[in-house]
Amino acid sequence: MTITTAGTIDVSSYVRDLGIRARRVSRELAAASTAAKNAALARTAELIDANRSDIVKANRVDLEAGRQKNLTPALLDRLELTEARIDAMAEGLRQIVALPDPVGEIDALRQRPSGIRVGRMRVPIGVIAIIYESRPNVTADAAALCLKSGNAVILRGGSEAIHSNLAVAECIAGGLATAGLPADAVQVIDTTDRNAVGALVKMSDYVDVIVPRGGKGLIERISAEATVPVIKHLDGICHVYVDEHADPDKAVTVAFNAKARRYGICGAMETLLVAEPVAGRVLGELAPKYREAGIELRGCERTRALLPDIAVASEEDWRTEYLAPILSIRVVDGLDAAIDHIAIYGSGHTDAIVTESVSNANAFLARVDSSSVMVNASTQFADGFEYGLGAEIGISTNKLHVRGPVGLEGLTTQKYVVFGDGTIRP
Amino acid sequence: MTITTAGTIDVSSYVRDLGIRARRVSRELAAASTAAKNAALARTAELIDANRSDIVKANRVDLEAGRQKNLTPALLDRLELTEARIDAMAEGLRQIVALPDPVGEIDALRQRPSGIRVGRMRVPIGVIAIIYESRPNVTADAAALCLKSGNAVILRGGSEAIHSNLAVAECIAGGLATAGLPADAVQVIDTTDRNAVGALVKMSDYVDVIVPRGGKGLIERISAEATVPVIKHLDGICHVYVDEHADPDKAVTVAFNAKARRYGICGAMETLLVAEPVAGRVLGELAPKYREAGIELRGCERTRALLPDIAVASEEDWRTEYLAPILSIRVVDGLDAAIDHIAIYGSGHTDAIVTESVSNANAFLARVDSSSVMVNASTQFADGFEYGLGAEIGISTNKLHVRGPVGLEGLTTQKYVVFGDGTIRP
Repeated sequence: MTITTAGTIDVSSYVRDLGIRARRVSRELAAASTAAKNAALARTAELIDANRSDIVKANRVDLEAGRQKNLTPALLDRLELTEARIDAMAEGLRQIVALPDPVGEIDALRQRPSGIRVGRMRVPIGVIAIIYESRPNVTADAAALCLKSGNAVILRGGSEAIHSNLAVAECIAGGLATAGLPADAVQVIDTTDRNAVGALVKMSDYVDVIVPRGGKGLIERISAEATVPVIKHLDGICHVYVDEHADPDKAVTVAFNAKARRYGICGAMETLLVAEPVAGRVLGELAPKYREAGIELRGCERTRALLPDIAVASEEDWRTEYLAPILSIRVVDGLDAAIDHIAIYGSGHTDAIVTESVSNANAFLARVDSSSVMVNASTQFADGFEYGLGAEIGISTNKLHVRGPVGLEGLTTQKYVVFGDGTIRP
Repeated sequence: MTITTAGTIDVSSYVRDLGIRARRVSRELAAASTAAKNAALARTAELIDANRSDIVKANRVDLEAGRQKNLTPALLDRLELTEARIDAMAEGLRQIVALPDPVGEIDALRQRPSGIRVGRMRVPIGVIAIIYESRPNVTADAAALCLKSGNAVILRGGSEAIHSNLAVAECIAGGLATAGLPADAVQVIDTTDRNAVGALVKMSDYVDVIVPRGGKGLIERISAEATVPVIKHLDGICHVYVDEHADPDKAVTVAFNAKARRYGICGAMETLLVAEPVAGRVLGELAPKYREAGIELRGCERTRALLPDIAVASEEDWRTEYLAPILSIRVVDGLDAAIDHIAIYGSGHTDAIVTESVSNANAFLARVDSSSVMVNASTQFADGFEYGLGAEIGISTNKLHVRGPVGLEGLTTQKYVVFGDGTIRP
């Protein structure tokens, strides 16, 4: 890792220089052995362990500055690197060491009538820029996922975490050096100048993809400005549809978990759709459970006919990702109405049906256009670890390239490989 | 298919209306059965056969207008729909009927410790816009590939082919009607107003991806303006590198075919790189063959030491996609120098090595970052039919989503599917 002091030169030349360096080493990284990449990550984990007092000290500087800037307690909490979080950071790196290396994998070589054999090889994307907020552990996670998948990475953390991020970056630099990998494989932007982001997202010659990690404001700002492709995560307005053929017990279990397990994550259900024939029984059981969990209910007129004491859900409610203990409920005629509601108000993130009907399950799977579509399972499962990706850099609501949780494979692409023996095309 | 006359309303509302219609039917198409899609395509092929005199008549109107506008003979040739080309158009549709439907395929369902099963289902992208020039057969090909892959499509052909395109579109409309598929599945922009393209490429609410098919000028103009993702094909500056461990006979065979079979296609070799130790022998055999085929040679100083009567290759030559009977030749020290040359001057399209060395072949495969990388095979193989895709809508030089020849699979994406049995996340 190269930490250049940006103070003396203008920000766009500085960022451009990082891009040139990243592009320069990207070919070397693409051909780096799994052993070298793993050695770098394992050594980084050791250094994070060994240098924890320095990391904590740097983090205290950020925390103190944050308090002076009156950051909210929630932000200060996200910023803090406790001993447990430092352990988790090192452990996360070791888990990435244990994951299979996707680079170089060839899916299948088909023999063609011309005599050539054709397949697709998984290869790194090239140069990835990660733009993130507050949590300093992202510095280690994101660098590790990019490195393991053979990409050069440029990291731009939040200004409030700059000292913590640079302390973690020192450990990564040590890991790279041990493994004989180029220092520029992982570069951290060390200026807090906001123009650095503006320059970064337009450098399509040097950056292949941008992954923003943070709130909706950050992601919208970056998407609006970027000329480089963005793997983005927008809203998670997730639905559970309880079909008329649902098993009521499964419906209650899934619908409760989808909201109440954790309401602040993107896979949390925001709207519950219930088929009219089963609405009385299912909502009758669910309503007291939600209330007991402190969840405010808002409903359509048909819902309020069953639960008269709840508030009216407005048009705005159907379009809202609450990320809060609030749930909107709509009673619908059946499958078609539910799918229509999701098409109009959903965000293409994660939607589930609860049903015992095979044909309704299949129709829901075929017709709901979301990054994850579930049958009889809680939307809270929308997560890279739960899906077996090992680790995730985020969840994509894009349609192209990668949808849903993004693991190592999402940070790679495929190229065709063709083998002949002096073979020519007639 | 809906053919709306745009004359009376402003172009951007007209195009927006097409987008709204396409988006509206895209869900129905995504769930359409393979049988229905095939029936529509088969009937379209029949109608193209049956209505060939109408198609030829419409084509004559375009040809006459083209002659009056002094189109070049090459353009008039591309525009012409001969009987043989009409046969080929119908046959192309029947071939797409015979291809497997990628939609709905689930790659593998893995059982997770939580009890859920997780896999990825192949699904249509949604709404695709194809912008193309002159060749009216693209109307049938592109519509068929988009329909078979379950996408709604908006077609914008060249103004010089408008009558031919609309005549083909009538046949597609008949095919859709027979199969009971929505008319708006395939819409042809019937205005020749150039602002239609500007509006189309910015409609990210209604169009998911743009596929331009045509010259570099068209593609660059669209890429510069588009806010919708573009599957683009830029330069094909393809290289063959003859390694010092090459079998000289294979080298001569491959390097000759890569240029001389057809020099006007994107997979044609533009620069030949030869390792110094074998340059004398290989170029000594190749030069007279190229000359006999009417191919002009331009070389670096080391090449000219071997072939003194050829012109000097300038810096500009290394960066040029000739698409003409011209070849630039460079003698290099070996593998590393060849890979460096390709990284600097190549366009990431198709590059080949000729070698008997397994380790040099592997290094070339790992380190050359192109959409197709070949060993001992001619770059002319870079083609969807040759790769076994059945048909292609173009060749992508993008890194994300799809690289190389784009067939039905490239017009789809994947979403996660999750199956539980009332399963909740702990």
